[in-house]
Amino acid sequence: MNLKAYIAHHRARVDDALDALLPTAETPPANLHKAMRHSIFAGGKRLRPILCLVTAEGLGETGDTALPAACALEMLHTFTLIHDDLPCMDDDDLRRGKPTCHKVYGEAVAVLAGDALHALSFELLCDLPDKNSYSTGDFVRELAVASGGQNIVAGQVLDLEGEGRDLTYNQLRNIHERKTASLLACSLRFGAMLGGANRDQLEALTAFGWNLGLAFQVIDDILDTTQTSEMLGKTAGKDEAVGKATYPAILGLEASRDEARELTATAKNALKKFGTEAGRLHEIADYMLDRDY
Amino acid sequence: MNLKAYIAHHRARVDDALDALLPTAETPPANLHKAMRHSIFAGGKRLRPILCLVTAEGLGETGDTALPAACALEMLHTFTLIHDDLPCMDDDDLRRGKPTCHKVYGEAVAVLAGDALHALSFELLCDLPDKNSYSTGDFVRELAVASGGQNIVAGQVLDLEGEGRDLTYNQLRNIHERKTASLLACSLRFGAMLGGANRDQLEALTAFGWNLGLAFQVIDDILDTTQTSEMLGKTAGKDEAVGKATYPAILGLEASRDEARELTATAKNALKKFGTEAGRLHEIADYMLDRDY
Repeated sequence: MNLKAYIAHHRARVDDALDALLPTAETPPANLHKAMRHSIFAGGKRLRPILCLVTAEGLGETGDTALPAACALEMLHTFTLIHDDLPCMDDDDLRRGKPTCHKVYGEAVAVLAGDALHALSFELLCDLPDKNSYSTGDFVRELAVASGGQNIVAGQVLDLEGEGRDLTYNQLRNIHERKTASLLACSLRFGAMLGGANRDQLEALTAFGWNLGLAFQVIDDILDTTQTSEMLGKTAGKDEAVGKATYPAILGLEASRDEARELTATAKNALKKFGTEAGRLHEIADYMLDRDY
Repeated sequence: MNLKAYIAHHRARVDDALDALLPTAETPPANLHKAMRHSIFAGGKRLRPILCLVTAEGLGETGDTALPAACALEMLHTFTLIHDDLPCMDDDDLRRGKPTCHKVYGEAVAVLAGDALHALSFELLCDLPDKNSYSTGDFVRELAVASGGQNIVAGQVLDLEGEGRDLTYNQLRNIHERKTASLLACSLRFGAMLGGANRDQLEALTAFGWNLGLAFQVIDDILDTTQTSEMLGKTAGKDEAVGKATYPAILGLEASRDEARELTATAKNALKKFGTEAGRLHEIADYMLDRDY
């Protein structure tokens, strides 16, 4: 299977599992569950769950047991997007080409839809089979640390505090480590843990995810500068308009492209102890580097 | 030890543990951690963690191993209060006599402080000793279900949707079951599980918590009608002003007092299979019925 078909295959599995694991749109209170589904099914790339599934598969876990943890990653990610888009935060009207949650359901329901997805992401981790040395508690701790006050939430606070200020390269990198790299690394770790990785394998896959996450964010910043709103499915040039620091603004466009290439190379280099079982991860890293949306 | 001293003793234990388990106010990003601490240390009664500790103690678990789970309940409760107080929800300026989180730190940081407390409450459950037949996964599932789209979040959605509408007694009771009874029952269940309760004991303590939670909410509605803002530490008469249904508005004041007494009696009756080990829970139920703030 070529990479595009392989990704499409896993994406369809994730979409089906998300549909099965979310309460139906008719479940009372219906507005809440419609809002949750609106944001979950707004055309996300499913990058985090796919990375989790591909990693688990590389380690021999090819069944459906990895799906609830993979979906937990997507639900947690979607919760953070809903809250980031709120008027009191980034005040975004569009996300993936569709109106954001609060534009359709109002601010109150949007806050609460995010909260419900946050809770549900943890609930999904309670049905994982205890395998090797990894327990539900190990998964819950990973997700709580990635989403909490030291990582995603911290990154969003620093991001908001940095608006309109001149940030250094290190300050910007710190924001992206918190906001993006932490959950990408967690996605790889979930896959590794589901596949029964040993400590060395877990460390290598974490390093891959961390650097891939940073590369992803550099590319995101580049695309925000170079692409149209139509291509991005969100307001292009928004970062600059609200005075947010970006890699291109700090490093320039060419140096930012070099940075993305270097981070991708570092990510792939972390996998050198693996053989063909990491082939798909190499392919995905290259694919992400060349993406245009 | 009389009840007041006993409650004060446990409250001090909870306060010390919360202080130890929260990041310091200087931990970057400092504004986030100050906001989390502002709301946690705003004078809460610590009802949920105290019920958890007292229940565990009644079953013989007298050490400090119950404290992280007890604190998780308080952090989760505080997260829901911060979000409920937001301008897009109940728009409250005062809580427990102090300015609400968003009044001091702004809306964005308040949303994020709530999110961080939500994540931290799950993280705290990862260090519990596996005891008897209850695992970390059992605790995580309880908390996720109590806080998620079927309970606390659902209750808040229904509460907001009910503003300005005439609700029936059953609709109002449903809101309070979701918003209040679910987490009170969870507090009792945490204590029971920490104390190694068997299935019968767990069911009885759940019924106690559920009915106590409903009684608590009826009394809250009564106090909102009869007490001054100064006594309550929040804006009195707020429910009526924004067109929220309350027990006194639907049943009248005297019938509401009867309802609170009946619920308290039902709660205590659920404990009849216990002996003196449930004595403190009986005392607390009576104490809550007579509270004036």
